[in-house]
Amino acid sequence: MIGGGTGSFIGDVHRKAAAIDGMIELVCGAFSSTADKSIASGKALFLDESRCYGTFEEMILKEKELPEDIRMDFVSIVTPNHMHFPPAKMALENGFNVVCDKPITLTLDEAVELKEIIKKSNKIFALTHNYTGHPMVKQAKAMIENGELGKIRKVQVQYIQGWLATDKESEGHKQAAWRVDPKRSGIGGGLGDIGTHAENLVEYVTGLKIIELAADLSTFGKGRVLDDDGHLLLRLEGGAKGIMSFSQIAVGEENNLAIKVYGEKGSLHWEQENPNKLTTKWLDKPNKVYTPMGNDLYPEALSISRIPIGHPEGYLEAFATIYRNFANHLMAKIDGESVDKTDYPTVDDGIRGMQFIYAAVESNTNNSKWTKIK
Amino acid sequence: MIGGGTGSFIGDVHRKAAAIDGMIELVCGAFSSTADKSIASGKALFLDESRCYGTFEEMILKEKELPEDIRMDFVSIVTPNHMHFPPAKMALENGFNVVCDKPITLTLDEAVELKEIIKKSNKIFALTHNYTGHPMVKQAKAMIENGELGKIRKVQVQYIQGWLATDKESEGHKQAAWRVDPKRSGIGGGLGDIGTHAENLVEYVTGLKIIELAADLSTFGKGRVLDDDGHLLLRLEGGAKGIMSFSQIAVGEENNLAIKVYGEKGSLHWEQENPNKLTTKWLDKPNKVYTPMGNDLYPEALSISRIPIGHPEGYLEAFATIYRNFANHLMAKIDGESVDKTDYPTVDDGIRGMQFIYAAVESNTNNSKWTKIK
Amino acid sequence: MIGGGTGSFIGDVHRKAAAIDGMIELVCGAFSSTADKSIASGKALFLDESRCYGTFEEMILKEKELPEDIRMDFVSIVTPNHMHFPPAKMALENGFNVVCDKPITLTLDEAVELKEIIKKSNKIFALTHNYTGHPMVKQAKAMIENGELGKIRKVQVQYIQGWLATDKESEGHKQAAWRVDPKRSGIGGGLGDIGTHAENLVEYVTGLKIIELAADLSTFGKGRVLDDDGHLLLRLEGGAKGIMSFSQIAVGEENNLAIKVYGEKGSLHWEQENPNKLTTKWLDKPNKVYTPMGNDLYPEALSISRIPIGHPEGYLEAFATIYRNFANHLMAKIDGESVDKTDYPTVDDGIRGMQFIYAAVESNTNNSKWTKIK
Amino acid sequence: MIGGGTGSFIGDVHRKAAAIDGMIELVCGAFSSTADKSIASGKALFLDESRCYGTFEEMILKEKELPEDIRMDFVSIVTPNHMHFPPAKMALENGFNVVCDKPITLTLDEAVELKEIIKKSNKIFALTHNYTGHPMVKQAKAMIENGELGKIRKVQVQYIQGWLATDKESEGHKQAAWRVDPKRSGIGGGLGDIGTHAENLVEYVTGLKIIELAADLSTFGKGRVLDDDGHLLLRLEGGAKGIMSFSQIAVGEENNLAIKVYGEKGSLHWEQENPNKLTTKWLDKPNKVYTPMGNDLYPEALSISRIPIGHPEGYLEAFATIYRNFANHLMAKIDGESVDKTDYPTVDDGIRGMQFIYAAVESNTNNSKWTKIK
Repeated sequence: MIGGGTGSFIGDVHRKAAAIDGMIELVCGAFSSTADKSIASGKALFLDESRCYGTFEEMILKEKELPEDIRMDFVSIVTPNHMHFPPAKMALENGFNVVCDKPITLTLDEAVELKEIIKKSNKIFALTHNYTGHPMVKQAKAMIENGELGKIRKVQVQYIQGWLATDKESEGHKQAAWRVDPKRSGIGGGLGDIGTHAENLVEYVTGLKIIELAADLSTFGKGRVLDDDGHLLLRLEGGAKGIMSFSQIAVGEENNLAIKVYGEKGSLHWEQENPNKLTTKWLDKPNKVYTPMGNDLYPEALSISRIPIGHPEGYLEAFATIYRNFANHLMAKIDGESVDKTDYPTVDDGIRGMQFIYAAVESNTNNSKWTKIK
Repeated sequence: MIGGGTGSFIGDVHRKAAAIDGMIELVCGAFSSTADKSIASGKALFLDESRCYGTFEEMILKEKELPEDIRMDFVSIVTPNHMHFPPAKMALENGFNVVCDKPITLTLDEAVELKEIIKKSNKIFALTHNYTGHPMVKQAKAMIENGELGKIRKVQVQYIQGWLATDKESEGHKQAAWRVDPKRSGIGGGLGDIGTHAENLVEYVTGLKIIELAADLSTFGKGRVLDDDGHLLLRLEGGAKGIMSFSQIAVGEENNLAIKVYGEKGSLHWEQENPNKLTTKWLDKPNKVYTPMGNDLYPEALSISRIPIGHPEGYLEAFATIYRNFANHLMAKIDGESVDKTDYPTVDDGIRGMQFIYAAVESNTNNSKWTKIK
Repeated sequence: MIGGGTGSFIGDVHRKAAAIDGMIELVCGAFSSTADKSIASGKALFLDESRCYGTFEEMILKEKELPEDIRMDFVSIVTPNHMHFPPAKMALENGFNVVCDKPITLTLDEAVELKEIIKKSNKIFALTHNYTGHPMVKQAKAMIENGELGKIRKVQVQYIQGWLATDKESEGHKQAAWRVDPKRSGIGGGLGDIGTHAENLVEYVTGLKIIELAADLSTFGKGRVLDDDGHLLLRLEGGAKGIMSFSQIAVGEENNLAIKVYGEKGSLHWEQENPNKLTTKWLDKPNKVYTPMGNDLYPEALSISRIPIGHPEGYLEAFATIYRNFANHLMAKIDGESVDKTDYPTVDDGIRGMQFIYAAVESNTNNSKWTKIK
Repeated sequence: MIGGGTGSFIGDVHRKAAAIDGMIELVCGAFSSTADKSIASGKALFLDESRCYGTFEEMILKEKELPEDIRMDFVSIVTPNHMHFPPAKMALENGFNVVCDKPITLTLDEAVELKEIIKKSNKIFALTHNYTGHPMVKQAKAMIENGELGKIRKVQVQYIQGWLATDKESEGHKQAAWRVDPKRSGIGGGLGDIGTHAENLVEYVTGLKIIELAADLSTFGKGRVLDDDGHLLLRLEGGAKGIMSFSQIAVGEENNLAIKVYGEKGSLHWEQENPNKLTTKWLDKPNKVYTPMGNDLYPEALSISRIPIGHPEGYLEAFATIYRNFANHLMAKIDGESVDKTDYPTVDDGIRGMQFIYAAVESNTNNSKWTKIK
């Protein structure tokens, strides 16, 4: 693991998510910017001191020297955005597979370059757009893919949080500090941090690409330079229209990612805060509500759940699904299977996310002019 | 009553809403386009045949001749949009007060002219933006007015229906037929029919005017010329940003009008389909949910309810509140009270609605360019 | 109307409910215990003073003398329980039809006697178990009647309020005062006031009679002699089991009447506070949610609604349905139609309610011994 | 681990729950009734064959011989009920700590004996009443303990499932088969399997013991001898009254465990299927809704969550909390700390559960006679 020292949010999430299914073991880490801190973090995680490294470079080079059955199989990159590309590149070039947090890189150019590096490396790469790991998201995608909703006409997506409503970055809140800093976060603020999740969810669930957008971004937090709120008009493939609202300053909202999709025959509605429910509505039938392990699910949804019907799974479990699918693919590859088991977000999702950020910033600069995503 | 013959939707709503509080009695009507139909409708409503008129002109002129204690006190106009202005004008000019359905007129010019006519007439005029009659909408408005939410930053509003998802207008559905016809509906389709409700709700609840908008309107129904779906970016007074989504083709949605308002200190959320609940969220307190007749309500909200806590009131009761407040004002005026009891939507709300329609259509024509509402 | 003077709760409800559909007009009343108060109440309701009576006896006798087209068609009895039987008896014996609030009488004997009086009178009698007037309750009943749920196995019903959690009766709260007084309320407190609604709802929806019950009644309010809370085990026809919880001291609860019915093939769930939704769950299908005017409703449910889908109707509208059906029956009878149009609760429901109260009190006296309802 | 071979439900739950926090590692197991099956299960879990044992006796004896830093620290017992006591007894007597699934034993006598064995062993013992591990359950308990609700008057609890609505046990469903078999399940069917969870939740949250109960148990499944549904009246310490409904045949219900507690000043409501929400209602304030990591939580609730606000945790995480607290206690004990870190259900909860089962069966045999829990 690269990043994720004691007290980090997403590093801990990755560790727990990777652990749930008993397929992945944490063996080493470059958790912090200094060796001492990294060792302290590693020890708290029951790691041997010898495998707690001071830098990712050291980790990659030293692990490479270890026997194959001992050295790490892949690295998880859980650092701020500006520190995604360098370790990803180095790990891939030294023969390690990579799991990386989103957005994929600091800049679009890096993302495009990373795709080339992955290709050359013959290694696999997963991006943790974790919300695609929910059973009811898989069910939503499958229903649309199988034409149950008919041609898609309209999409509403939102990702609304309130945690940056006040000046957290001046109060020593580390998560806040790097997210509002363009050097570490990139040209998008909330846009990159949560807007890309919303964008990814729309394209994943509908199977339609967003063609162009018109963005009105806002910065409400005093002294901030990056957006912390925004509204977007969307036009998708096939003539569908959409709308997106994201915010980090929506007081009282927790992690309110939600999507509604309307087709010619039916519609569906899913909310991250209540993830074990998929509400569908129909031209000629009563509303139907699907639940994990419930009746009439597609295999893509049924196969995800770990526990019986009515036993709620949440954020960590969806995150774990990305890791589980990545691990399955990795083991198949190690076992020499030729089948492509990619069932997790990849570098292509990462590039789409960066293109989305760039188009939205450009549109906003041009007073919300329609701007192609490319 | 003008319009609202047997089988009409909104005419019947007006009648029931006016009846609930026992303050208003239906005494006459020009319900339909022919005298025979009008009489048939009137008889079914237990009216005397002598007061069922073939045209609104006849009604206004004949009622004017009746003794003061017998003739109607006001007219309710419940016809399609193109037939709002002519009877409103004639009624006012002949000394009758007016209640009129929304949008106020067919064109913006008519709305502006109507304002002048009202002024000259010394009569009162109410526009039935009925959703402002809900106790929890009054509570929302009062909370914002009293600064509980702090400065407003963000507004999300939607009015989503699915009833025009298919080609109802070709199946002899009268409600559908006039709504998709620009001659009877005006330049806005869903925009006028439900978008104006959303616009009115935003301005009523927040107390902030929408300054400008960027609209992306759609027409999904085959053969239609007016919009049946749309997405809008909004900029409000004081720097607040907003988003609006409306639709008549969102399959499975019933009458899903909903608003969320985010301020610096708190936020609130209200939904028409579940109107007896106002959810509020706070920087530093747990979520609070208000209900009609419940704890800690403002007098504006408390005074609305007709029945005790937990006994749901709905659409008709909110509509009735407009009529009740109008009747109270009218009686005060008849009694010679000088106090202004205007607590219902007026011609000014009507003009705002028309300006909103015109700005949205203009923006849409200019590929969603930001356009002032004026 | 008998009872229902200014400031009363249920009298006002009856008036509004009767007015909504425009079929019933309030023409006279004995609203209060003195002629002066009665006149004042009547005037506030726009009645002529000559038809505001000091006692129900006076009203019945004087109205009887009026010409048929002027005199009242029926009386609505909206007094406390001990004043149901005397005016009902006198009205029926003098040729007037009756609508009466529940519970039907003060004692079971009165209820049984009233049935005989009704039979002899050849008049019609409706009991306002208003909750059976909701479209979704009609749908629930129809689904079970048509076997959709299969054989019924289990019923959960509750009617939970909190308004008597404190000593309201000592604070001059009139509604509270008579409800805790056995002379005016009868042998049941909450049992009669809301328990009978729960009992009626179970038997109406399932079509099954409660055979026997085991009751544990409580009195939490200091100085009270009647129950204000209770739990009951139920055994129904056909081997179904049930449970009932009612309360007037459940702090924070408003008017939480709810029923769940489980059959061999499906189950359903309805809540009074959210009445426009019927949730159903199935052995082999996803959950389905029905809404008024929505897809796949039985005619019994479809025919109830006054307004389109998504426009919430509530307590008054359900109440109004009892009045509308009563009025339809009455008009048919006046017109000489021979068809029985009874689609409202009758004296038989009233007797069941009294038997339920008596059985529960008896069981409670015998330390919750199983006791037959008879 | 004892039990929990490939395909088991609760064994897998225990493994995932134990893994989440990275504090516990699976090192050995007697997963199945034969050595071969046990080895196959263990290998699938990446265990070394040498530590996959054919019987729990073999495992306990062989592990005891291993060096202290290698041998297991505790055993997890995840077998059917009849196989809880023998391995628990042997493990404790051989110096191993124990985590055991509920109900604690097959008979009440065993439970009482186990308490003695634990005392003598100086080892620690946790019972996985996992629902007490939810942050919002901790918050509920803390609010009541701190008197926020005032004196408790009324409790409603239910645990409703539908998975045994049909004859699953004849279709080769292993989970169903042992649960309906008194030899493996004990004298309670649903009573032991889920009724004990409901009982434990009531006593945990309210801090009040159930004094006596009146039970009406049912067996709807053909050919079954144990209860699969039941309703109970409850009387608690301090004069509170309660009601319980449990079922395994409630078609369409998933895992609907829910509790409502009413005090003199406030009430609360929690549902397992929506565990990240605690609704509270008050005499004199609007309803308040608490969420994990949200405002105004007690430290007992705040300290539980692993991830930020709005990121739902579910069944596995609550289960993991039992394991985490057990592991913390165990490590403190190993480190020689003298402080008692018991923050998980113990043998006393287990004995209460067995007493509850026995009292309910006795009451049911006596036609629902009130029966003391002892």
